Amino acid sequence: MSARFDPTILDALEAALPTLRERAERALESGLPGADAHPSRLHEAMRYAVLGGGKRMRPILVYATGQALDYTGSRLDAPACAVELIHAYSLVHDDLPAMDDDDLRRGRPTCHRAYDEPTAILVGDALQSRAFELLAEGEGDDAPAPAARAGMVQTLARAAGSRGMVGGQAIDLASVGRRLDAAELEDMHIHKTGALIRASVQLGALASGPACAATRDALDRYAKCVGLAFQIHDDVLDVEGDAEDLGKEQGADAARDKPTYPSILGLRQSRELAERLAGDAIDALDGLGSGADVLRGLAAYCIQRRG
Amino acid sequence: MSARFDPTILDALEAALPTLRERAERALESGLPGADAHPSRLHEAMRYAVLGGGKRMRPILVYATGQALDYTGSRLDAPACAVELIHAYSLVHDDLPAMDDDDLRRGRPTCHRAYDEPTAILVGDALQSRAFELLAEGEGDDAPAPAARAGMVQTLARAAGSRGMVGGQAIDLASVGRRLDAAELEDMHIHKTGALIRASVQLGALASGPACAATRDALDRYAKCVGLAFQIHDDVLDVEGDAEDLGKEQGADAARDKPTYPSILGLRQSRELAERLAGDAIDALDGLGSGADVLRGLAAYCIQRRG
Repeated sequence: MSARFDPTILDALEAALPTLRERAERALESGLPGADAHPSRLHEAMRYAVLGGGKRMRPILVYATGQALDYTGSRLDAPACAVELIHAYSLVHDDLPAMDDDDLRRGRPTCHRAYDEPTAILVGDALQSRAFELLAEGEGDDAPAPAARAGMVQTLARAAGSRGMVGGQAIDLASVGRRLDAAELEDMHIHKTGALIRASVQLGALASGPACAATRDALDRYAKCVGLAFQIHDDVLDVEGDAEDLGKEQGADAARDKPTYPSILGLRQSRELAERLAGDAIDALDGLGSGADVLRGLAAYCIQRRG
Repeated sequence: MSARFDPTILDALEAALPTLRERAERALESGLPGADAHPSRLHEAMRYAVLGGGKRMRPILVYATGQALDYTGSRLDAPACAVELIHAYSLVHDDLPAMDDDDLRRGRPTCHRAYDEPTAILVGDALQSRAFELLAEGEGDDAPAPAARAGMVQTLARAAGSRGMVGGQAIDLASVGRRLDAAELEDMHIHKTGALIRASVQLGALASGPACAATRDALDRYAKCVGLAFQIHDDVLDVEGDAEDLGKEQGADAARDKPTYPSILGLRQSRELAERLAGDAIDALDGLGSGADVLRGLAAYCIQRRG
């Protein structure tokens, strides 16, 4: 563990995490149509796919960014929910037989196993629409200004689309069975997971109100480093974690001959790189006060989590 | 043909159609990332899925609505493109082996045949994101106000999602092999195709600037009738059209045991219902001047087209 990690940072996170996670669950619960909405089987399946647990890393980043900017109000709920719906839809489609063909997700049957394949395709499609609907809606007294709502849609759509997350999945598809170098692997992850993590922080900032360019840049540097650290640690966990913590089969990526950081850099160097990036993320926040402690803690948590 | 169809209406449409279609193609061409954007195979497949022809009914409705409201400027291009991207993504996912398992679309191999199944899933996902990105962007001098952009995102997202188009596809899935009554079939089509056609007209109105409530209501009545007439005529064509005009196999829906209007009402009554609805659509526009002639012509075209 680098000297830059003050142990009290993790304490601040641990104190805040249950509340933030609960808030994320509430936002998701109320952001999704009820299971009795017509057609009910589709809506039930959408709720199954989203409300079945998960770390809620992305909504927590939205809330923690708000906190770093001294805003904790209700304008954060729509982007917190929206970014997690995009993440959830991508998992549903990733798990499909034509993609990773996974039977388990978060310890439960994947959506196409619990329902069926056509339903899982539609669930993913509908979750994506719902994410943008939520961002655009803006109801209530404390609703973001229309320009902030349009800006959030633009930010999330760009991060989710062909030049962001989906682009990363396409790069991933093309990489199976090929030997990537570290730069190509980084390019894949910057798209596949990095774009949405970066968007989470950008959305938190957009919802919180105007911030100066220096603060926005600092938050963006933070998000880029955290996104990559998170992914490298994911690869490390895939090698060394056990199946129970992960909720999926250990060694799954390696078994599919997917390129990973440990397979290219080795396990020790991968761990060191993740640590260095988490440290850089924390350093990026130097100009921010103690409101940013949860963000700092998340950077440390990213490379310490067991699943 | 009902007495309400003035033949000069179709003349007005025929004169306008090539220009509107060309404008739609240009909007799509420039609304999609270039085929050389990274990752290039995904972007190439997105362009393959969208730029391979099609009636462009939805973008044309956007432009025609603008014209009815005396606006023909560039603010119509983003919604025209966005609504067609949503339509195109739904076709790509509909054609997948797990859904309709179609080999041909518009006379060419479907996206998953021309590329592969994972790519087709990602193409659909990315087209949806791009639609919302385009609506939210608003660049240039004549860009819509942020409130109009947020309103357009909300309108399209709702129409595309689980309580609109995707909901209709779920109702469709659940109906295969079941005997629906006319009300259930109408409910399916109001969701499956009606929602997006209605959204096309709403987007055209939102992009054109403020309109009075009476005009908005009239346009909405028009759009609802046209959407259903369009679908009934589609079902009629599936029975009597020939494969060449349709670009897909004739009788395909009936062969899959999908409920259709002719199978419930009979062919003659289905044709009469489509005609009545097209007439109602034209009547709804009584308060609008000659600027609405293209909309009127589209209602007539809807039930006369051969493919």
